Amino acid sequence: MDHENDPAFPLHRRGKIEVRPTVRIRDGAGLALAYTPGVARVSQAIASDPELVFDYTWKSNTVLVVTDGTAVLGLGDIGPRAALPVMEGKALLFKEFGGVDAVPMCLDTTDADEIIETVVRIAPAFGGINLEDISAPRCFDIERGLQERLDIPIFHDDQHGTAIVVIAALESAARLTGREFADLKVVVSGAGAAGVAVSNMLLAGGVRDLCVCDSQGLISRDRPGLTGVKAELATRTNPRGLQGPIDVGLEDADVFIGVSAGKVAESAVAGMADDAIIFALANPHPEVDPAVAGKYAAVVATGRSDYPNQINNVLAFPGVFRGALDVRASRITTGMQMAAADALSDLVGDEVGPEYIVPSAFDKRVAGAVAEAVAAAARAEGVARV
Amino acid sequence: MDHENDPAFPLHRRGKIEVRPTVRIRDGAGLALAYTPGVARVSQAIASDPELVFDYTWKSNTVLVVTDGTAVLGLGDIGPRAALPVMEGKALLFKEFGGVDAVPMCLDTTDADEIIETVVRIAPAFGGINLEDISAPRCFDIERGLQERLDIPIFHDDQHGTAIVVIAALESAARLTGREFADLKVVVSGAGAAGVAVSNMLLAGGVRDLCVCDSQGLISRDRPGLTGVKAELATRTNPRGLQGPIDVGLEDADVFIGVSAGKVAESAVAGMADDAIIFALANPHPEVDPAVAGKYAAVVATGRSDYPNQINNVLAFPGVFRGALDVRASRITTGMQMAAADALSDLVGDEVGPEYIVPSAFDKRVAGAVAEAVAAAARAEGVARV
Repeated sequence: MDHENDPAFPLHRRGKIEVRPTVRIRDGAGLALAYTPGVARVSQAIASDPELVFDYTWKSNTVLVVTDGTAVLGLGDIGPRAALPVMEGKALLFKEFGGVDAVPMCLDTTDADEIIETVVRIAPAFGGINLEDISAPRCFDIERGLQERLDIPIFHDDQHGTAIVVIAALESAARLTGREFADLKVVVSGAGAAGVAVSNMLLAGGVRDLCVCDSQGLISRDRPGLTGVKAELATRTNPRGLQGPIDVGLEDADVFIGVSAGKVAESAVAGMADDAIIFALANPHPEVDPAVAGKYAAVVATGRSDYPNQINNVLAFPGVFRGALDVRASRITTGMQMAAADALSDLVGDEVGPEYIVPSAFDKRVAGAVAEAVAAAARAEGVARV
Repeated sequence: MDHENDPAFPLHRRGKIEVRPTVRIRDGAGLALAYTPGVARVSQAIASDPELVFDYTWKSNTVLVVTDGTAVLGLGDIGPRAALPVMEGKALLFKEFGGVDAVPMCLDTTDADEIIETVVRIAPAFGGINLEDISAPRCFDIERGLQERLDIPIFHDDQHGTAIVVIAALESAARLTGREFADLKVVVSGAGAAGVAVSNMLLAGGVRDLCVCDSQGLISRDRPGLTGVKAELATRTNPRGLQGPIDVGLEDADVFIGVSAGKVAESAVAGMADDAIIFALANPHPEVDPAVAGKYAAVVATGRSDYPNQINNVLAFPGVFRGALDVRASRITTGMQMAAADALSDLVGDEVGPEYIVPSAFDKRVAGAVAEAVAAAARAEGVARV
């Protein structure tokens, strides 16, 4: 195969990021300040007062982008080396959109305990950890385990980045169609990383009637064989105790949120409430074809850039980490995530419309607005250092 | 203490390096190439042919600078956070002098096995490992353990970077004073990282009469209680079986190489051969005061920038890794290190003089000449991938 006929390949040649000095060394005097003997005085100061590491190193602006290569985009478990172009892309977006320095870290282990242990050991030089493309359910244990052991923010973007943008989009769509979160009947298709995080954030946002589906159908307290995070979800969702395929849940539902790639039949979509809201986010093949969704829904969103209302994580993660780093937050709470979602929907504001429920990824206000909201929430919740 | 009265502190504010995109994303079309969906095609290609990771990521130009903070400059065991400014400085020099992207990695463990395990797990995204400021004797085990498990170069700069520049300087000094390595009587003071590496390279370079001292005096086969690397050194050095303090070794010696900070009495220096060569490399206090050394020696070198003949690792490591990365070397052999030393001494060439035995750190020919020699040696020794 001649890769060079595909414009993606020459663009990726030798990678997409570099490490550059922010100070120039032109002579011996410069060398004596930036390196020995000058640097020794800075190191000594940090040894005496460890918090100074935030002032005199890149830690305060730097995030590790950690993956084990097990759930890369739509490609699945392709391993750490093949995951590297995606992590470099993430690092590029961190800098371009949030001014955050990000270092790709592709781990040669898929064992959750080993991943936690490894990241804890390499964490001192970094101000935050962005977990990326790690398969469920390990991603839940890894995120929790790391946050228990480290006092810098741990953020699994496939969970929380997606959830923030989905909630923002739903806030706009609810406003557009005159609904309140508390009155919505919502069906989430997918109980992996994104599905679980979206569900948690919907509940935190006040949604009361939420059903979650996996490939076996609706998750309910009565379904046998549920374990782990799905068993836990069952205790907090599906208040009407619905059972069966997703079609059952969609009857008269206001909102469908697909993060699973599982196809939904047109007949099931047709059974939703009037002015339905359909977010079919699977890439490249949405769970509901946008043309079909448009026949029944007031608002349709996808994960694709060639349709209106793209639900794109790049709206969230650069600003979220920008804000968290700016206040040296020790974690990223649900409240901070909710503040990020609110900020995104607020940017849409009165201009909200069926084809405009989230800002454009290239709207230059986005990262700053998200960062400001996240930083304020961090301070309000007492997880900010400064 | 008001750090800002020291110019080193404002220079270090927020660190000395950053991660920057090498491609610009200006619109959705750019995003679609550098990130989804374009990046997925590149990842798929690497999943099919893992060697492509060298072509389409930053791996081929990127080195991890790994420390555990146990032997930082003259400061000793100051921990991983306080070591970060030094590692950032190293990264800065890697880029400035060698065009190499370097990522500081300050480990929160000092256990040799844990360090090996951790670095192996994080290695996939990197083309080489520069170990830095890790105390002896653990540094020897860590370097060997990593090289056994990884197929990228592992290079402990405190050992081999120092040794390369010392050997280059000694080649020049021997030429200047009309001596051959095979005829030199050499005393190395220090059996830590630098002392062991310098000794090994002297032996590889043909020196036959070499004595090594530690704080207990001369190392010999007959000295009780030697273990590990010192016991091993004893079998290959001190052919005359000298015992006692360093003064005994220095009687009639041609060369003193100090990498220990242990002071040497003027009476001992006075006993060296005519036209002696004295490299007193401890910083900031050379083992022999340069003024005293000048009374007895034909050539004097130090580790300081305010005297002639500074033995500075920056002459070696940027070019060594530049050359190793250029040919995708799997390791850095003694032959490659010797080629680097020869290249440095060759740059001095006919202009050699008592105050000019190594090139200036700001001589723009240095990294290129070292890189070329290292790459050629790698190919000759069969450790180059391309």
